[in-house]
Amino acid sequence: MNVNGVPYRTIWLKEEDPSLVQIIDQRNLPHEFNIEDIRDVTAMSAAIQEMHVRGAGLIGAAAGYGMYLAALEASRAADFDASLRESYDRLKATRPTAVNLVWALDRQIEAMSKVDTVAEKVDRSLETARAIADEDAAFCRSIGVHGLELIRSIAEKKNGSGPVNILTHCNAGWLAFVDHGSATAPIYASHDARIDVHVWVDETRPRNQGARLTAWELGQHGVPYTVIPDNVGGHLMQHGQVDLVITGTDRTAVSGDVANKIGTYLKALAAADNNVPFYVALPSSTFDWEIRDGVAEIPIEQRGGDEVRYAQGTSEGRLTRVLLTPESAAAANYAFDVTPARLVTGLITERGICEANEESILGLFPEKRR
Amino acid sequence: MNVNGVPYRTIWLKEEDPSLVQIIDQRNLPHEFNIEDIRDVTAMSAAIQEMHVRGAGLIGAAAGYGMYLAALEASRAADFDASLRESYDRLKATRPTAVNLVWALDRQIEAMSKVDTVAEKVDRSLETARAIADEDAAFCRSIGVHGLELIRSIAEKKNGSGPVNILTHCNAGWLAFVDHGSATAPIYASHDARIDVHVWVDETRPRNQGARLTAWELGQHGVPYTVIPDNVGGHLMQHGQVDLVITGTDRTAVSGDVANKIGTYLKALAAADNNVPFYVALPSSTFDWEIRDGVAEIPIEQRGGDEVRYAQGTSEGRLTRVLLTPESAAAANYAFDVTPARLVTGLITERGICEANEESILGLFPEKRR
Repeated sequence: MNVNGVPYRTIWLKEEDPSLVQIIDQRNLPHEFNIEDIRDVTAMSAAIQEMHVRGAGLIGAAAGYGMYLAALEASRAADFDASLRESYDRLKATRPTAVNLVWALDRQIEAMSKVDTVAEKVDRSLETARAIADEDAAFCRSIGVHGLELIRSIAEKKNGSGPVNILTHCNAGWLAFVDHGSATAPIYASHDARIDVHVWVDETRPRNQGARLTAWELGQHGVPYTVIPDNVGGHLMQHGQVDLVITGTDRTAVSGDVANKIGTYLKALAAADNNVPFYVALPSSTFDWEIRDGVAEIPIEQRGGDEVRYAQGTSEGRLTRVLLTPESAAAANYAFDVTPARLVTGLITERGICEANEESILGLFPEKRR
Repeated sequence: MNVNGVPYRTIWLKEEDPSLVQIIDQRNLPHEFNIEDIRDVTAMSAAIQEMHVRGAGLIGAAAGYGMYLAALEASRAADFDASLRESYDRLKATRPTAVNLVWALDRQIEAMSKVDTVAEKVDRSLETARAIADEDAAFCRSIGVHGLELIRSIAEKKNGSGPVNILTHCNAGWLAFVDHGSATAPIYASHDARIDVHVWVDETRPRNQGARLTAWELGQHGVPYTVIPDNVGGHLMQHGQVDLVITGTDRTAVSGDVANKIGTYLKALAAADNNVPFYVALPSSTFDWEIRDGVAEIPIEQRGGDEVRYAQGTSEGRLTRVLLTPESAAAANYAFDVTPARLVTGLITERGICEANEESILGLFPEKRR
């Protein structure tokens, strides 16, 4: 999507130097927009681990390009296979809970195993890295195409009485993928189709991905938005100021239970209480085809208390963090919650929109039937 | 309640100098604990307006003492009545929406009108200021007595299997009143009665009253607590980690609809969805005996966007604020929301606990029947 009017992806190969990967370093957004050169597996591992890049789709794409850099390094090593295996292990250890990471690494190993020479393996790893990134962007683009129809139908019903007001939580934007995003894809598609949309951006404490990332990327692409504290969505829905909620998801059970950033469940409750449609956008790679009881079975990551005790931002132009609580305050930091399927109006996937239940999901993905 | 082991109120008259009012200046809590001397109406007006003191009950008490200082000043003026009226107008203009402010000012005028001499008026204004503060503390204490029984019954059911986990939102603590607080009164009473309680403290963006004030006062009094982002409560309730929710209220309709700090409604929805009892604690002065449809009729204050764009805290020991969003981000800041009575399990008042409906409320306050 656009940054200062120029289209970007979150990760790409430099055109003039095909051994150089470039990424948007997201750590200091929205205050600083930095592009980082990634020349080797060490740098890519650090970029994933220290969250220069983050988000399900983007972590997969970064792992894919990481394995291409790994193949290049291995081609100069005494033992190609040993070098590649070492890089695989390093990349895998960066974010142990991210499903897309291992999926991308294994896809690379599989692809390289199909050819014999080192030169072929390097070529194949480059093709595969590109394919992973392109597929991610294409799937998100398809989510946008399907979601656009949903938003268009709401716009038609509103018939010019103000914009379609869409509430989103956390960042399931293009910064979390290669392009378009999941929850934001229908929003960008609608905006580009000149449908009048406005986005309520949940701040999403404690890491403030809404205030920091979603606000920034919507603003850069020219989509009107308003940042609100996480506390506000229910009030807006009570007063008819939200037409649609769209969030992303970190894992969705085949039953339709949705794990997503902490606080999503509260917005789903408010949407149900006020008859506001609540949709979840996801590429099919985010389905967990094994789990049925999301609340009981999906493990919830707990992160450090300092993310709660401190807030990061700029003071006099300088990035800093401030202590919000008493110094010795105990703090709990659950990163995700699970929204039961009964509160989800529908799922927007690359193949279309379905209901949040096993029958409807498997109707779109029949190859997953057992 | 206790600060560093010493019992405090939020406002008091200095024992050795009965013309000097002292307050806890709450602006820099939890980072700095400052006691401020208030010598005249000018200083008291500034303290209320600039929120050195805040919270419904405390604003009323501050207005009461403000009128005592006003009477002292008037007693030295050429025209007692003119001077008093000027002070009344100044105090009234500090927080135009605070119901308790005008109520306390008018109560002072009424009390002074009952006596004739200036000396008597000064005496009467001192008595009345003390009465307003003492009543506030006594009402909150009674809320604690009634709420204690509720918590005790939960503790008995839990039968030693961990503490009674109570979630609260914003600060309805003793810092918002003269002592005890409303939502916190049952918690302090239970803690003092050696019932094992633990409090989940909602951070309460955008002004972070939970992280800043509730965490501080609970910690100072020795009550175990954990700060959580506003997003977390639903997840905790899904997993049986909340036994009871208690919040305060800024205005409760006689129908039982509860206006309180923004985000309260989301917690009430989660409590209802998980069969967690949701109680609201209030002195009877917070009832609005005229309004029946709280969602439609209670006006919701909108505050400046900078409270959303920035977070305040300390960096290297220095109080500062950091910009969280893109510099040009639009932000909306609704200060309150309304929780419909159907989501409220009960109301804890100074006269006992009732259901959140007109019949039950008027059962406790029959003199309000029309």
